[in-house]
Amino acid sequence: MQISSSSFNQAVEQLSSLPGIGKKTALRLVLKLLNRSKEDLRYFGNVFIELSEDINYCNTCFNISENHTCSICSNLNRNNQVICVVENVLDVIAIENTNQYKGKYHVLGGIISPMEGIGPNDIKVNELIQRVQTENINELIMALSTTMEGDATNFYIYKKLKEFDVKITTIARGIGIGDELEYTDELTLGRSILNRIPFENTLSI
Amino acid sequence: MQISSSSFNQAVEQLSSLPGIGKKTALRLVLKLLNRSKEDLRYFGNVFIELSEDINYCNTCFNISENHTCSICSNLNRNNQVICVVENVLDVIAIENTNQYKGKYHVLGGIISPMEGIGPNDIKVNELIQRVQTENINELIMALSTTMEGDATNFYIYKKLKEFDVKITTIARGIGIGDELEYTDELTLGRSILNRIPFENTLSI
Repeated sequence: MQISSSSFNQAVEQLSSLPGIGKKTALRLVLKLLNRSKEDLRYFGNVFIELSEDINYCNTCFNISENHTCSICSNLNRNNQVICVVENVLDVIAIENTNQYKGKYHVLGGIISPMEGIGPNDIKVNELIQRVQTENINELIMALSTTMEGDATNFYIYKKLKEFDVKITTIARGIGIGDELEYTDELTLGRSILNRIPFENTLSI
Repeated sequence: MQISSSSFNQAVEQLSSLPGIGKKTALRLVLKLLNRSKEDLRYFGNVFIELSEDINYCNTCFNISENHTCSICSNLNRNNQVICVVENVLDVIAIENTNQYKGKYHVLGGIISPMEGIGPNDIKVNELIQRVQTENINELIMALSTTMEGDATNFYIYKKLKEFDVKITTIARGIGIGDELEYTDELTLGRSILNRIPFENTLSI
């Protein structure tokens, strides 16, 4: 049985178009939304209309921003000689939450994936190269995922920039703090042994 | 780090206000939504505004409807002497999908739950009693969940209506078709033995 209301069905359809939300969950969610007052429901919808109008991307780093320059790029207290290269905005949020990084970012908006037809020109790689050429960048910290696509993107950027006077580093991979050695996959464990660091370094944190 | 965009944060907040969607999932969903065109995003929002304006509940059975009378109540081909009492609209959809029921419905919009402060006056019980009194109802099929709250609601309705000339039945509980006996909980198995039916009855289906 279809409920004979086109706006109801449209709402179910729109919610179930989101990743991870199936038809049945969407149905449940719409029914929950209908328990709210008309004002609350209108507000729920309005938020997304405002979102469609307000949201821009920073012209420099392509982070989400209401203005043409995001709050990180316009922050004079941050080190503008270091750029951390990430895949998407969620990664920026994750790194910012550590409170350990005070440089700038560059959000690629994806990674190179020949399987999905995503090439270097589909993501903000050229914009990154331009930033290295024009801004006074000392170090590029690659913080992409350790998938084949992430490695390919890392390598592409490395090749494009190796003539420039910029240090390219990558975030440390190893066993998570609090993780048990015996449950760690051998790749990570092997990498963490190869990339061991002087014990003194851990004391300074 | 909070992203410095109020409409972004509002969208995350609104999505995470839905049951089963946490802050992190909401963040992901909003980023996915931002990948869409401005038009699509505006459409997404508009659907809920339309929903807030279009949706009504049937004056008779409280099913969701665009008009004052829902498509089931206004269907002359359905048996209007039988009412199936359910908790919410999802139950109506589930029963309609079986194609086995041709009577009317009554959507209570909840069940009596003293723990959550939901009493008989918070759900559409009085409206049900009124229907039994004014319409020519032969049978009331109780199809509420088999929780303590469902049983309490069943009993409350039963007590209120036992003087009236109406048969009150409840849907059969038993082992699901295709389920294995050995994995069934003893309560269900016990109930299905107590409520056994003549074998001939299964042949007619």
